[in-house]
Amino acid sequence: MATINENFLKLQAGYLFPEIGRRVQAFRQKNPDPKIISLGIGDVTQPLAPAVIDAMKRAVDEMANESTFRGYGPEQGYEFLIEAIIKNDFNSRGVELETDEIFVSDGAKCDTGNIQEIFGTDNIVAMTDPAYPVYVDSNVMAGRTGPAGRNGQYEKIVYMPCTAENNFVPDIPKQRVDIIYLCFPNNPTGAVASKETLKKWVDFAHRTKAVILFDAAYETFITEEQIPHSIYEIEGAKDVAIEFRSFSKTAGFTGVRCAFAVVPKQLKANTKDGKAIEVNPLWHRRHSTKFNGASYISQAAAAAVYTSEGKKQCRQIIDIYMGNAALIRESLTKLGYKVYGGVNAPHIWLKVPENFSSWEFFDRLLTKANVVGTPGSGFGPAGEGYLRLTAFAKPGDVRKAMERFSAL
Amino acid sequence: MATINENFLKLQAGYLFPEIGRRVQAFRQKNPDPKIISLGIGDVTQPLAPAVIDAMKRAVDEMANESTFRGYGPEQGYEFLIEAIIKNDFNSRGVELETDEIFVSDGAKCDTGNIQEIFGTDNIVAMTDPAYPVYVDSNVMAGRTGPAGRNGQYEKIVYMPCTAENNFVPDIPKQRVDIIYLCFPNNPTGAVASKETLKKWVDFAHRTKAVILFDAAYETFITEEQIPHSIYEIEGAKDVAIEFRSFSKTAGFTGVRCAFAVVPKQLKANTKDGKAIEVNPLWHRRHSTKFNGASYISQAAAAAVYTSEGKKQCRQIIDIYMGNAALIRESLTKLGYKVYGGVNAPHIWLKVPENFSSWEFFDRLLTKANVVGTPGSGFGPAGEGYLRLTAFAKPGDVRKAMERFSAL
Repeated sequence: MATINENFLKLQAGYLFPEIGRRVQAFRQKNPDPKIISLGIGDVTQPLAPAVIDAMKRAVDEMANESTFRGYGPEQGYEFLIEAIIKNDFNSRGVELETDEIFVSDGAKCDTGNIQEIFGTDNIVAMTDPAYPVYVDSNVMAGRTGPAGRNGQYEKIVYMPCTAENNFVPDIPKQRVDIIYLCFPNNPTGAVASKETLKKWVDFAHRTKAVILFDAAYETFITEEQIPHSIYEIEGAKDVAIEFRSFSKTAGFTGVRCAFAVVPKQLKANTKDGKAIEVNPLWHRRHSTKFNGASYISQAAAAAVYTSEGKKQCRQIIDIYMGNAALIRESLTKLGYKVYGGVNAPHIWLKVPENFSSWEFFDRLLTKANVVGTPGSGFGPAGEGYLRLTAFAKPGDVRKAMERFSAL
Repeated sequence: MATINENFLKLQAGYLFPEIGRRVQAFRQKNPDPKIISLGIGDVTQPLAPAVIDAMKRAVDEMANESTFRGYGPEQGYEFLIEAIIKNDFNSRGVELETDEIFVSDGAKCDTGNIQEIFGTDNIVAMTDPAYPVYVDSNVMAGRTGPAGRNGQYEKIVYMPCTAENNFVPDIPKQRVDIIYLCFPNNPTGAVASKETLKKWVDFAHRTKAVILFDAAYETFITEEQIPHSIYEIEGAKDVAIEFRSFSKTAGFTGVRCAFAVVPKQLKANTKDGKAIEVNPLWHRRHSTKFNGASYISQAAAAAVYTSEGKKQCRQIIDIYMGNAALIRESLTKLGYKVYGGVNAPHIWLKVPENFSSWEFFDRLLTKANVVGTPGSGFGPAGEGYLRLTAFAKPGDVRKAMERFSAL
């Protein structure tokens, strides 16, 4: 008799975004007329940069020709891409990495969801609250948690509340934690971590032999000079941290699929009896056993992001989104809303009016203003009372959405 | 203190193909001159079909334009592709499926590696011997096995030997098994299963409430009329089987990355206390939590495989490979080798000469004939004494390889 993985039954109803999709769909069926503006799901809207398009076409042409056709690539990614990543994303900020410390993949969602596989199920996982649901759900599926309580939080996970009081940067835990998920610039709050903050975490991980899983998928949106883009800008971080990056938001690759993880060779974790084991070969083994490389066309496209044309064009697109973010911040502030984020991140974290829950305000915004946000409570209990807005819509739509807010 | 998943430490040295790569590389360094011909790793060599290239270019153009740009797609795949799959791969053979029973992915390696996540770790897994290493390794990583014994077989796995005696089709197990991996046309032996054979397995699964994981990645190579392409051609299979398909070999997508899994809604597995649970929503949840859809360009390319031009062109490419398979079969048979497969599959399973182990014959073939095969023992102990040759090389190279065989 085949049995299921019963951990799946602990999962709370519907992954957040499908649930939003269902509510929008239901509203649309009753109200086919109004044009709904989505500031909800974090999907980009600007077309790909011309340098990226050109690179993809060249790659497609190569696939049409026997002498340039590419079949299976290296599971860890093509060297041409890995070298461009190291040079542009890391060397430029004083971080040295070797090529076999980079693992190219088809998405940071996949990487942040799969990374937990190489760690024991007995680890105590620390999670910011709110957080990207994939961190939590992938650990629930793996059996690192008990059932969910009434507030939606799972037993055994250590939740680290991020609130206006601590500037949405979590405090160092007082209890035992072994694996720590951090995301800066943060999704959903838009908060950033200073070098001093990250140094505290790196020191903590050194002291307690914990591992930090650092999601830097939004680093390209950082505008303030002093904010670190990589956790490896902190001394000693290579001993304790894995970093995740993505081309999804950096270059509009949500439909193209390319990302990467950095697993430094000096990072170690332990067997139960305390023997230190290198983590890089474990991820290498996982990657080459259950993954077969990202599409060659996607990797060729990603490499073009690092050309001088590609950089310039992608920066122009990011500037459009950050213009949206500024408009949302300013408009909502003027209307008397309390908003956070949107300066070094494409996310604006809106405190919903008193007497509304996150979902209630979501529903009101959808039905009265035909604007879609993401209920903060979907990211964890500490997100209750907030709504996430993203800056990825088209500028004209953002302007319209702000007008509709003012009529709310 | 972060601990590792110690199941990884049970894994045997190096995944098969990287190990082959290392040996070839070492030989090449010492012998830079001879042109090595690979009949080893199952990678295609023919360029993509023109219809596929055209579709990819159109898709890239769409990504360049704001009004046609595509960001995140549905995690389960675009409906345009799913509908083409159902119509062409299944309806054409009398199998009805609903669109939410198909899950498009970036590769069958990923799907066959990840599918075990939705099942309990207490399941007894049955595996053909030899088998594609991903089936075994992904279960080792998940903790469904004990350590490996001297012969490389893991405790708790039920190995089902496939030998010349049983025509490389395994016998129905006599002991308890819960999850059964079957692959027909088989990689590595090239064997196929008749409807009668598959019916026995489906009946067995019904009787024992087992689940069959059916890898049909090579169905397009079937030439004999009466051989089923899908397990769902067998009555009752939808209650007990998940099927995996891929565009990698069908349409040369090893570098493009697109595949799919079929998880019928009527398939159920059980909680430990015997409650029947639908499996489709579990895979849906896994897929939408840890995967973000296959590249839009790859999906557009896959859909083109089903156009009338695409079908014709892909068939021509398959015919080239099957011409290679016939040449290998015939040449080696003439030379006195005993060979299997190669009629309904791109794999030829060569019995190595007496007194050679698989790896010894691999080394001899590499160093004396500069031809790369895949040692049968890499697929399991019952593969010892065999070598896998694949038909994916260029026809000229296959001819040369056969000449070199005759001089061996």
